[in-house]
Amino acid sequence: MHDIGILGSGRVARALAGKLAGAGHAITIGTRDPARAAAAWAGARVALRDCAEAARRSAIVVNATPGDTSVERLGALREELKGKVLIDVSNATLRGQDGLPSGLLYASGSVAERLQAALPETAVVKTLNTMLFTVMADPTSLRVPPTAFLSGDDENAKAVVRRLLGDLGWPEGYIEDLGELATARGPEAVALLVTAVVRKRGLAPFAFTIAR
Amino acid sequence: MHDIGILGSGRVARALAGKLAGAGHAITIGTRDPARAAAAWAGARVALRDCAEAARRSAIVVNATPGDTSVERLGALREELKGKVLIDVSNATLRGQDGLPSGLLYASGSVAERLQAALPETAVVKTLNTMLFTVMADPTSLRVPPTAFLSGDDENAKAVVRRLLGDLGWPEGYIEDLGELATARGPEAVALLVTAVVRKRGLAPFAFTIAR
Repeated sequence: MHDIGILGSGRVARALAGKLAGAGHAITIGTRDPARAAAAWAGARVALRDCAEAARRSAIVVNATPGDTSVERLGALREELKGKVLIDVSNATLRGQDGLPSGLLYASGSVAERLQAALPETAVVKTLNTMLFTVMADPTSLRVPPTAFLSGDDENAKAVVRRLLGDLGWPEGYIEDLGELATARGPEAVALLVTAVVRKRGLAPFAFTIAR
Repeated sequence: MHDIGILGSGRVARALAGKLAGAGHAITIGTRDPARAAAAWAGARVALRDCAEAARRSAIVVNATPGDTSVERLGALREELKGKVLIDVSNATLRGQDGLPSGLLYASGSVAERLQAALPETAVVKTLNTMLFTVMADPTSLRVPPTAFLSGDDENAKAVVRRLLGDLGWPEGYIEDLGELATARGPEAVALLVTAVVRKRGLAPFAFTIAR
């Protein structure tokens, strides 16, 4: 059982919190305004705190904030995140004048690498950003097995994340360890395709995977 | 039966040429130095010409040149490509100091859109750039069905490409029409993940697909 903080209180946070709490972990949601979030989370087995406190009391922290604000928000929590495992599931795209995503916010790099640079005493692991949020905590609901890509520089931290993926319902064979954190550029780039698929198909559950 | 030009004479061109020739199409390979390419293509049922002549004699042209040089090379063939369907299967990534792909050459946009802008009287369709080259002409060899993403502004041109995908062995259900050409940004971004997977797994056949 771990103390797990989830920064962000949107749909991603909700999907992950429910499944991880069900697996026996103690979940703290980190949000800008815990009092305001209380009604939306009524009945959920989670504690609500501000992001700093959620990070402070947790050994493992999930970044479920919007990727375009994550580096600024989490960079301010360097002390609170020191020595922790940070699981980054975020995406950060730019939107063009035509309304389509025109590119990646960090065109040469990734949110994950920026977070690692801002948080040098934290072990950042990228995963789960290549699917609709529903699939993150319900991967075996799809007819075709989805893939959870994994990128990180710290092997121990990746092992921790693998076990948590198991608690989220991911069979070991669905996990594809791409290597060091810089490989997160690949899965993060897939966000551009995620957007195109959602635009066409709506919020029907899907995930990207590798056909072999 | 179509007159099909394939610009480029590498592994992608070879995979496509063999299968399309077998389906009864007349294939012309466009290469910088046809005389020099002759030995490598000995026995293949293709004609070898320079790129201008290959484009001129074909109703459908495939861009199988490296994506980082495609806009310059094909932009010079505006007259030869006028009124033609151009199938762009290319990718263009930047390489960082760490040897990993550091980003996309056209970070806000895509090779396909750049080609369309350079070739306004040509109908550009993006497809097949999200897989190892072997899968382009042998999609049913994988255990999990791969996806051929399709992006283009001209519906007639997309219908032509759909039929050619059929000749390449793609069942209709494997084809995912994402919409207009600007949606090519999604599949092109996947190139960053393709590179990571090849680096880890080598040249074992694979393709990206959507699990549902």
